[in-house]
Amino acid sequence: MAIYQAPVRDAQFVLHEVLRVQDASNVEGYEDLTDDMTTAILGEAGKIASEVLLPINETGDKQGCTLENGVVRTPDGYKEAYQAQCEGGWPGIDLPEEYGGQGMPYLINAVVGEFASSAAMAFSMYQGLTHGAIKAIEGFGSEEQKNIYLPKMVSGAWTGTMNLTEPHCGTDLGLLRSKAEPNGDGSFKISGQKIFISSGEHDMSENIVHLVLAKIPGGPEGVKGISLFVVPKFIPNDDGSLGNRNTLACGKLEEKMGIHGNSTCVMNYDEATGWLIGEEHKGLRAMFLMMNEARLLVGMQGLSQASIAYQNAVEYAKDRLQGRALDGDKFPDQKADPLMVHPDIRRMLMDAKSFVEGGRAFYYWASILIDEEGKHSDEKAREEAGLLIALLTPVVKGFLTDKGFETAVNMQQVFGGHGYTEDWSQSQYVRDARIAMIYEGANGVQALDLIGRKLPQKGGAGMQTFFGMVKDFCKENGEHEDMAEFCDPLKEASKELQEAVMWFMQHGMKDPNEAAAGSTDFLHLFGYTAIGYMWAKMAKTAQDALAGNADDPAFYEAKLKTARYFMERVMPMTATHLARIKAGGASMMALDAESF
Amino acid sequence: MAIYQAPVRDAQFVLHEVLRVQDASNVEGYEDLTDDMTTAILGEAGKIASEVLLPINETGDKQGCTLENGVVRTPDGYKEAYQAQCEGGWPGIDLPEEYGGQGMPYLINAVVGEFASSAAMAFSMYQGLTHGAIKAIEGFGSEEQKNIYLPKMVSGAWTGTMNLTEPHCGTDLGLLRSKAEPNGDGSFKISGQKIFISSGEHDMSENIVHLVLAKIPGGPEGVKGISLFVVPKFIPNDDGSLGNRNTLACGKLEEKMGIHGNSTCVMNYDEATGWLIGEEHKGLRAMFLMMNEARLLVGMQGLSQASIAYQNAVEYAKDRLQGRALDGDKFPDQKADPLMVHPDIRRMLMDAKSFVEGGRAFYYWASILIDEEGKHSDEKAREEAGLLIALLTPVVKGFLTDKGFETAVNMQQVFGGHGYTEDWSQSQYVRDARIAMIYEGANGVQALDLIGRKLPQKGGAGMQTFFGMVKDFCKENGEHEDMAEFCDPLKEASKELQEAVMWFMQHGMKDPNEAAAGSTDFLHLFGYTAIGYMWAKMAKTAQDALAGNADDPAFYEAKLKTARYFMERVMPMTATHLARIKAGGASMMALDAESF
Repeated sequence: MAIYQAPVRDAQFVLHEVLRVQDASNVEGYEDLTDDMTTAILGEAGKIASEVLLPINETGDKQGCTLENGVVRTPDGYKEAYQAQCEGGWPGIDLPEEYGGQGMPYLINAVVGEFASSAAMAFSMYQGLTHGAIKAIEGFGSEEQKNIYLPKMVSGAWTGTMNLTEPHCGTDLGLLRSKAEPNGDGSFKISGQKIFISSGEHDMSENIVHLVLAKIPGGPEGVKGISLFVVPKFIPNDDGSLGNRNTLACGKLEEKMGIHGNSTCVMNYDEATGWLIGEEHKGLRAMFLMMNEARLLVGMQGLSQASIAYQNAVEYAKDRLQGRALDGDKFPDQKADPLMVHPDIRRMLMDAKSFVEGGRAFYYWASILIDEEGKHSDEKAREEAGLLIALLTPVVKGFLTDKGFETAVNMQQVFGGHGYTEDWSQSQYVRDARIAMIYEGANGVQALDLIGRKLPQKGGAGMQTFFGMVKDFCKENGEHEDMAEFCDPLKEASKELQEAVMWFMQHGMKDPNEAAAGSTDFLHLFGYTAIGYMWAKMAKTAQDALAGNADDPAFYEAKLKTARYFMERVMPMTATHLARIKAGGASMMALDAESF
Repeated sequence: MAIYQAPVRDAQFVLHEVLRVQDASNVEGYEDLTDDMTTAILGEAGKIASEVLLPINETGDKQGCTLENGVVRTPDGYKEAYQAQCEGGWPGIDLPEEYGGQGMPYLINAVVGEFASSAAMAFSMYQGLTHGAIKAIEGFGSEEQKNIYLPKMVSGAWTGTMNLTEPHCGTDLGLLRSKAEPNGDGSFKISGQKIFISSGEHDMSENIVHLVLAKIPGGPEGVKGISLFVVPKFIPNDDGSLGNRNTLACGKLEEKMGIHGNSTCVMNYDEATGWLIGEEHKGLRAMFLMMNEARLLVGMQGLSQASIAYQNAVEYAKDRLQGRALDGDKFPDQKADPLMVHPDIRRMLMDAKSFVEGGRAFYYWASILIDEEGKHSDEKAREEAGLLIALLTPVVKGFLTDKGFETAVNMQQVFGGHGYTEDWSQSQYVRDARIAMIYEGANGVQALDLIGRKLPQKGGAGMQTFFGMVKDFCKENGEHEDMAEFCDPLKEASKELQEAVMWFMQHGMKDPNEAAAGSTDFLHLFGYTAIGYMWAKMAKTAQDALAGNADDPAFYEAKLKTARYFMERVMPMTATHLARIKAGGASMMALDAESF
């Protein structure tokens, strides 16, 4: 019953008109990103999303995964859909050609990933996590490890997982108990229990490559003594064929609020054979490489659920006849007007539209920064992009998932009572989107990472870059009468964001709780400003296109109207966030634990 | 695993110290509300909530209801719990003694109802809706009808339902198709399909009394031709015993996101025998009597889920060791500090605590207004209370459910990944709370009711009463140095609320969409102001108690600290809502339907 049309036109607008990827010839691979090329890829990816992935999304939710005698079965249709994706070469689209990938920019994977996640979030996680595991092995594994694992993982024949959490520790990895004892032959015996392992066991791939954090006895205490191991389900022979079954197993599938189609496993490692990835005790570095990518991916998941929820709510609001427009019947020949005529329905739809389109631009921009960090020809540009994306990553993750969930909830609201039933998919989008605020570092942890680690990095260089970009844009365009309505609120928000940074500098030094108390508000203030920046850019692009007699003026008019809505209705949140930040931590920390 | 301790001390604080119900001797029944009396009742109600209702809450969620051959079975333990409630006389606590009730104030039912709903929301709905049906029959039924139905319903032996929604219409009752044809003997043949009928069919009571909206052929078009009928599952004989099974049946149970323990039925009426309640074509009046009460009840449901979610999150935040306090280890002898030390965890808990306690005071105040409207000795006071509660009802419903849901989501967040599993109950609180934003008039409909109907009532008399109360309070107390920190933000919010009213008056006359565009923001602005008023009152009470050397200063200190947090951190939202209201409707209504 649910619909999904990949927003190819919107994506193309952002890529080619707003962010002008085709002009970024100094980033390796971007020279191929012509409009024709992306039209072909995104069109095909959109088709798969609608025709192959969407149909299994509801089944996945209703059936969930099952565990029987150690075997996890995915829902009906998952295997076939996964095979179709592998045959199309999608898992390797941005991965190195030497391992069988297509070597395209990360950006393309990001856009294609958004479509897939909108259509079937739980399903697309199997491949999404594999992608991160590949990056960790590629970045830190030995040549031998790369040759054994990467070709199989890039093709999708083998999938990957990441094993951090244990029953008593998630965020606080210093408490980790899993052990890795050297076998003397270069391998280790891995023992311990890991929980919340997404895609930990399933029936879609020949092998599953677990990346596991564990401690080598005798190493340093806490997080400084954590190493990363590759622990395959089946131990590969030298020729790449599958050897012995490793002594690891899924002990339980978690029963969850959503993403039922993804197998969330308790994984038990019982002296399983594993091999060190990178250096001893330096496991967190490799894990963070995976984590950073995963955080962008999760931010995208929030966006993706908002996107599909929005599309379905729009359809419903056009179809469902209920009540009359306040300013006179719109369809006097019908018994009632469609929901769409009611201001409060529009409020929810416009909130959603302006978030989804603005958030998409933000996410694509962040993905370009990943490519620039890795593949820009200029070292200084690489460094600058690296600092900026490090800063923006927690914002992408935290803001797009908080707002993505909120949007899904509002889109469910458009359906009234029908949205609460499981006959429609709006409940699933809400339940699926909910996890994105939690995993890969709960959003509160993102906020702390943002203000405690990313903001002060290199003397605040990333933040300065961001402020500089906004300033330059406003300087260049804000004087135009037509752009003032977009640049003025953006400037205001940017000023507030600067004020917040100053406040943290003045107060956070003396008492870290003062800064931490405002961390989530800061993340949101940053998110609104970043998306406001995107909307100002999109408005400018739309104005230029209209001035140049674009073929489809309605498309650009809609962008302008949506930008206007965002500035008028959404941006006012920034002042509240600033006020809260400046309230400091005293009232937040005042209560004794017993008084709660 | 979940805990629930009815907040008896907090309730008593609001009832006796803040709102001083024992002094309201001009309201019938309030003369009995001594501290001793309420302590006994609330203590007992709290005990039942923890010991009888809480244990069936999770079972209810996991098992849900089942429909087989027309018979709906409730989850394990429901029948026994319902019987225990009836034996204790709880269903009739505030109902007329002549029908077997205990004749206490509505307020007591409200407080007791909150405890029950916190412990088991889906379960408590069976009784909650019966209460509303009783009010409709009491208000509009004939003497004969009252004598037949009320004693059985007051005792709980029979339950009640309310049947409005049809597949093609919920909010827009003018589209109703259900028919009522006169049989000639005073009875009618009721035919049609009703959906989303809570407690429509189940196995806990001997009989189910359906109140059904239907149209008598030949009557006026639209909402002016709707009549209300009582359509019992079993037709009562004159002696009150059960006669023939009526020709009505549950055709389907809805599969829902939450409140699985409540049977949400598709009800098919196939020439079922029914009797008119009140006058022909005047069914909406009686239905609104039920609806208004139900709206307060639903507002309370939002609050109730926030309350239990908060209690469990506090326990988890005290128990779960993860990470270290930013300002130095709090428990150096443990491997980590409890979550409670982290500012962002406290932010969520303080948001929740300040909402739950402030929202509770607001809800109790609203319930007192119901009693004043019905039972105040002075006619003018009755009228004033009636206008004020009419105005506040959509705010209680919309604000407490929006914020109650948001609070439940935040409390789930405190649990990290564990909160997303169904091993803990946080997911259930979120899923259960979600419906409260939708049913009994979706919150957007509440907002429209507020600005379109309630605000202008009697020239804005209700609104003026509210402003007057806030002004008087601030005048009386704001000059005290100690109270300025509470009165200043309250005055500011009240000023903004007035500004919003003025804005609507200026712009809404010309174009109703201009006002409707800001309706939800207005409802929220009002909600914050109302709860801000409650917190200012609570702060004053706490200060007085501390000045008077109260026995438990820690309790009052905590109230002051929480009030301070609410003023500093929560009240800044009002400015954003005002800014949105003043943005008007142009950008919201600008887009063509095809451009979404």
